[in-house]
Amino acid sequence: MGSSFGKIFKISTFGESHGPAIGVNIEGLPAGVQIDLEHIQLELSRRRPGQSRITTQRKEADEVEILSGVFEGVSTGTPVAMVIRNKDQKSKDYTHISHKFRPSHADFTFQGKYGVRDYRGGGRSSARETAARVAAGAVAKQFIAQAFGGHFYAYVSQVGSLKLGKDYLDLDLDQIDDHVVRCPDPEMADKMFRLIDQVRKNKDTIGGIITGVIKNIPVGLGEPVFDKLHATLGKAMLSINAVKGFEYGSGFEGIKMTGSKHNDTFYKKGDRVRTRTNKSGGIQGGISNGEDIYFNVAFKPVATIMQDQESVDKEGNNTKISGKGRHDPCVVPRAVPIVEAMSALVIADFYLISRTNKLNH
Amino acid sequence: MGSSFGKIFKISTFGESHGPAIGVNIEGLPAGVQIDLEHIQLELSRRRPGQSRITTQRKEADEVEILSGVFEGVSTGTPVAMVIRNKDQKSKDYTHISHKFRPSHADFTFQGKYGVRDYRGGGRSSARETAARVAAGAVAKQFIAQAFGGHFYAYVSQVGSLKLGKDYLDLDLDQIDDHVVRCPDPEMADKMFRLIDQVRKNKDTIGGIITGVIKNIPVGLGEPVFDKLHATLGKAMLSINAVKGFEYGSGFEGIKMTGSKHNDTFYKKGDRVRTRTNKSGGIQGGISNGEDIYFNVAFKPVATIMQDQESVDKEGNNTKISGKGRHDPCVVPRAVPIVEAMSALVIADFYLISRTNKLNH
Amino acid sequence: MGSSFGKIFKISTFGESHGPAIGVNIEGLPAGVQIDLEHIQLELSRRRPGQSRITTQRKEADEVEILSGVFEGVSTGTPVAMVIRNKDQKSKDYTHISHKFRPSHADFTFQGKYGVRDYRGGGRSSARETAARVAAGAVAKQFIAQAFGGHFYAYVSQVGSLKLGKDYLDLDLDQIDDHVVRCPDPEMADKMFRLIDQVRKNKDTIGGIITGVIKNIPVGLGEPVFDKLHATLGKAMLSINAVKGFEYGSGFEGIKMTGSKHNDTFYKKGDRVRTRTNKSGGIQGGISNGEDIYFNVAFKPVATIMQDQESVDKEGNNTKISGKGRHDPCVVPRAVPIVEAMSALVIADFYLISRTNKLNH
Amino acid sequence: MGSSFGKIFKISTFGESHGPAIGVNIEGLPAGVQIDLEHIQLELSRRRPGQSRITTQRKEADEVEILSGVFEGVSTGTPVAMVIRNKDQKSKDYTHISHKFRPSHADFTFQGKYGVRDYRGGGRSSARETAARVAAGAVAKQFIAQAFGGHFYAYVSQVGSLKLGKDYLDLDLDQIDDHVVRCPDPEMADKMFRLIDQVRKNKDTIGGIITGVIKNIPVGLGEPVFDKLHATLGKAMLSINAVKGFEYGSGFEGIKMTGSKHNDTFYKKGDRVRTRTNKSGGIQGGISNGEDIYFNVAFKPVATIMQDQESVDKEGNNTKISGKGRHDPCVVPRAVPIVEAMSALVIADFYLISRTNKLNH
Repeated sequence: MGSSFGKIFKISTFGESHGPAIGVNIEGLPAGVQIDLEHIQLELSRRRPGQSRITTQRKEADEVEILSGVFEGVSTGTPVAMVIRNKDQKSKDYTHISHKFRPSHADFTFQGKYGVRDYRGGGRSSARETAARVAAGAVAKQFIAQAFGGHFYAYVSQVGSLKLGKDYLDLDLDQIDDHVVRCPDPEMADKMFRLIDQVRKNKDTIGGIITGVIKNIPVGLGEPVFDKLHATLGKAMLSINAVKGFEYGSGFEGIKMTGSKHNDTFYKKGDRVRTRTNKSGGIQGGISNGEDIYFNVAFKPVATIMQDQESVDKEGNNTKISGKGRHDPCVVPRAVPIVEAMSALVIADFYLISRTNKLNH
Repeated sequence: MGSSFGKIFKISTFGESHGPAIGVNIEGLPAGVQIDLEHIQLELSRRRPGQSRITTQRKEADEVEILSGVFEGVSTGTPVAMVIRNKDQKSKDYTHISHKFRPSHADFTFQGKYGVRDYRGGGRSSARETAARVAAGAVAKQFIAQAFGGHFYAYVSQVGSLKLGKDYLDLDLDQIDDHVVRCPDPEMADKMFRLIDQVRKNKDTIGGIITGVIKNIPVGLGEPVFDKLHATLGKAMLSINAVKGFEYGSGFEGIKMTGSKHNDTFYKKGDRVRTRTNKSGGIQGGISNGEDIYFNVAFKPVATIMQDQESVDKEGNNTKISGKGRHDPCVVPRAVPIVEAMSALVIADFYLISRTNKLNH
Repeated sequence: MGSSFGKIFKISTFGESHGPAIGVNIEGLPAGVQIDLEHIQLELSRRRPGQSRITTQRKEADEVEILSGVFEGVSTGTPVAMVIRNKDQKSKDYTHISHKFRPSHADFTFQGKYGVRDYRGGGRSSARETAARVAAGAVAKQFIAQAFGGHFYAYVSQVGSLKLGKDYLDLDLDQIDDHVVRCPDPEMADKMFRLIDQVRKNKDTIGGIITGVIKNIPVGLGEPVFDKLHATLGKAMLSINAVKGFEYGSGFEGIKMTGSKHNDTFYKKGDRVRTRTNKSGGIQGGISNGEDIYFNVAFKPVATIMQDQESVDKEGNNTKISGKGRHDPCVVPRAVPIVEAMSALVIADFYLISRTNKLNH
Repeated sequence: MGSSFGKIFKISTFGESHGPAIGVNIEGLPAGVQIDLEHIQLELSRRRPGQSRITTQRKEADEVEILSGVFEGVSTGTPVAMVIRNKDQKSKDYTHISHKFRPSHADFTFQGKYGVRDYRGGGRSSARETAARVAAGAVAKQFIAQAFGGHFYAYVSQVGSLKLGKDYLDLDLDQIDDHVVRCPDPEMADKMFRLIDQVRKNKDTIGGIITGVIKNIPVGLGEPVFDKLHATLGKAMLSINAVKGFEYGSGFEGIKMTGSKHNDTFYKKGDRVRTRTNKSGGIQGGISNGEDIYFNVAFKPVATIMQDQESVDKEGNNTKISGKGRHDPCVVPRAVPIVEAMSALVIADFYLISRTNKLNH
């Protein structure tokens, strides 16, 4: 249970960090979408480890293979399965944790839940799992681009206490990938880089925030009362490894405001109804209103640190444990494409469902 | 679509603010649970309007009727349907908005999505819908109490800029309902009351935060990778009217910390593995670890204000609109039982699913 | 679990034979459908007991109330809940079975599955439950009629060994309701009536077959590989009380043929591709091909007979049991509207899903 | 849509006949199940083409690879993905049908539904897809064997008009695989073989019936009112390629009986409540009663015949078409393991759900 996401555009993922492969089966991709394998591969390379010295040095080629559902470059309406082989499996790095529970990891809870666990690299709880999401998200992006031209952005807006402090409207979102930190403000990106590098040298880790922006979304996506657009988007983000919080529009800050300041008043612009402000974050009553959707996602400091920590083993004896292998000192730069991917999966699903909302579509 | 929640313990709700009734159908409640109608009614009365001068003066008896699934006071394993009649429907209060879109409400998006809408009191987008959630949540609470004794708490921890600033461990959670504001610190509760009352006199509204705490939960609830416990809990909270953000454990603050400070180290206490700190908020890798689960939910200021606001009508003409009728100046005191209800629904579902996790249960 | 049906056009039913009410919540009905309450009531009256001396004499008014989702006579896209109160509950008729298991009823299995049961009138396993299906099916029919003009027919084609033996194409399907037996061949209908009446006088019961016909269905409904149109239709039919078999198109007889005789060859008629024969029953590869869909549904003899039968009680002691109250000697005449209703629910769902099949709809 | 099956034990399949691979992702397999790869491979070899001259001569090694969810030979509770590469893809055999619709195949309906299709070997509509079901079913069988020892049988009981005419209780079900026809009566098996071989020589095909038997199933499986055990079993069977009908217990014959003859009376045997007869087919009210479950599945004659047939092409011109390549003259011998597999998938799912039926499990 729990490895499926979506109702119509529905993905089902599989795979452990150190098993033979990870992958995804996409059901519900409409027929007639041109599928560009290179674009999928490109998205995967954005998530891939080893992009700079502030990301883990594991070498994962992350080469994706499409097994089904695409014929002569076009989707056929049948399931699209994709597989990424696990090539660089240094399983021996993990024998030291086979009987110990790493603090703030999922070792203890998987053991408690299932009675057994694949301890190598965190098994199913490894962030490697998110590569399957990125591959599926790339397909969703292609579908959305061809269906109505929606765009997905995500960027690092905070690392530790270093906060960008600019509205997304004041940034050039096309610059996000220009810097390995994936913050579109070059000066702040440099500061963040130095902070992450310092943390790495301290054999420690640090958290951060990713801001997501979705543009050019039609009015009417989201299915109240439980599958509100922001609720499903929130779940999608909270399901990403290390995420501890989600807010959209005015978010946690907005609660301090009065309604008279917070409300987004309507006006007519051309033939569209627009709002003068956008504290609603493009979503009202759980349904998109055509304005930009924006949100923040909080990532905790990576749990694996290169220092000794207290723990217990499976028998309950006190023990010490220390990270080995190759790990990220800060997860947010590499998580940017994952945030985009999950956004695209949510929008693709709600867009398809929205075709069923009215008697005459 | 979108009016169902849960996979095994599954609810399906219905009803508009000013239609004949709202209600819920619960599928998957196990047989053998003693159902106490009075307790359900009590929970509904906690959500009910008219509890004090800082809540709306609408009079809703909110009398619940169980239509099925309970025989001689015990659940039979068949669907439990509950209906609450809408009695105090002042529909005429809403004719002034039948052709206008209230700012930051769902009028515009419902109209855009469906082409028609029941404009009376917000129709399906009214917070009245949450009464059905509270009724279902009361049943979930009874099931959980009888199955393993889990407890659900929620309280107001912030109103506008007035922040309680105490850990839940330093509060007496049994005092929550002692004050109409539902903040268990009497001094802060008084301050919050005065602030809300002042805002009300200003014909304005204000936001707030509710903190949720779940105690005595077994290890192993939550279904990675998408249906992580905190992801589903987050979705449940974000689906409540007016919610703009969700964080659990160390949340947005935790990102500033380093991993060495943030990690929860393990130790053995009696025959249980415990963590010395609980920045994980009782959830690791998306699965409960047996520690307390705690989280914050941000509510925006209520959109309906008693002041004139700019807007447009259905034809796109500029117009003005002002709230009429009876509305809450701050939603958080009445939202406390809703947060508890949604918590209970999430836990009930994951608890039942957890029975299927192992070969030998 | 198990009281929901459909993925987009999704119903969730509830209610026991002798509880306060039965009902249904419909999610996913598109907005803009004109809802005719009288038509729903009419469909319910076709299923209602007491239509003639060969149907049970229970008096169930079966008055339906719409609780939500319809505003000014038009569906709003929100859930449509309907409730039918149980008025004629002669619960005392059932005290004699509170500790005994009626042969070929669900008493024993419900007791085994849930540990408790509402024994009155079969509780949830009563055919009374199907009234909720008929109400939902009536709404589905109205949607389909307004969306693309599809038509649903069902009629009694066999009672005991009395087999109609005519193709549906040779019958006037508008005559179905002209006879209480609901067989559109008057002569055969009379024979069937006499047989059922004789069986009734013998304090016995008898089985029968209902043939379903669906006309004017677009090409493309059905979702391989598991949710093939005929597979889902089959499940829908098999879920009706007392059904023991389902076949479509050439069915069980077709297996005796060779492929060269059985295949439906294609030809062009006007601008449509048609088949010269229709042994496929309007479905190829699990997807509608635009020809008529037709199928047979086998109903066993009603289990409640007015004779003594061997049985055991809850303690496992041997005992005797005999039917009391008012029961049908043959279920098929009243099951006709249920077959139609389930057909309409299946088609409504697949039609909505089909809107998501292609990039450009 | 439509490539998933099950609610807890849930499979999601993918793959076309002539694409790179077919496969399945299993969610919800409990942890702790010992997985025997050889057994999975063995089941696949039972479905594999080329077993004798009455089955297609395509050479498919059908070698399965497990990609995830199994660690050190034991299931971990995470998704189990399996892939079978397509090796013997004679795509050129199919260019002749790229613009034509084969009679009684899914070519026309896939084209109509999706606007595009992978015409090679039927693409997704090919029976090759069922190999993924057999692999998943083998895993389900292993789980069930270890959980409660349930057994699954299926055998050919009719080919064309050659009907076995014996009750399953009078057959030695362990002999099923002794004959390539998979009929456990050697004499009848020989007759069936000769009939199929004759049909093959005539460049024609013929239909048949498979009888399924499920033994040692606990009381309480099945989820009324829609997910009745026989309704879901029926859907599972009807979803198999070429199936036109399903009946269980007394089935279509039972309708001719009176209730007094048809009812299965109860008695006590040891500490179990049993029925003296089993016309209910082990299922009452949609729930297993502990007796054997048995049912019949009707398969139409294979649509591909080696003779010229009338058809139309994509442009609507009249044309002729004739089967090429290697095809089965009768599908039932090879479909036996598919019927077993689908049975096992249904039972595995309902067994897991049944763990959630009562307060105290």
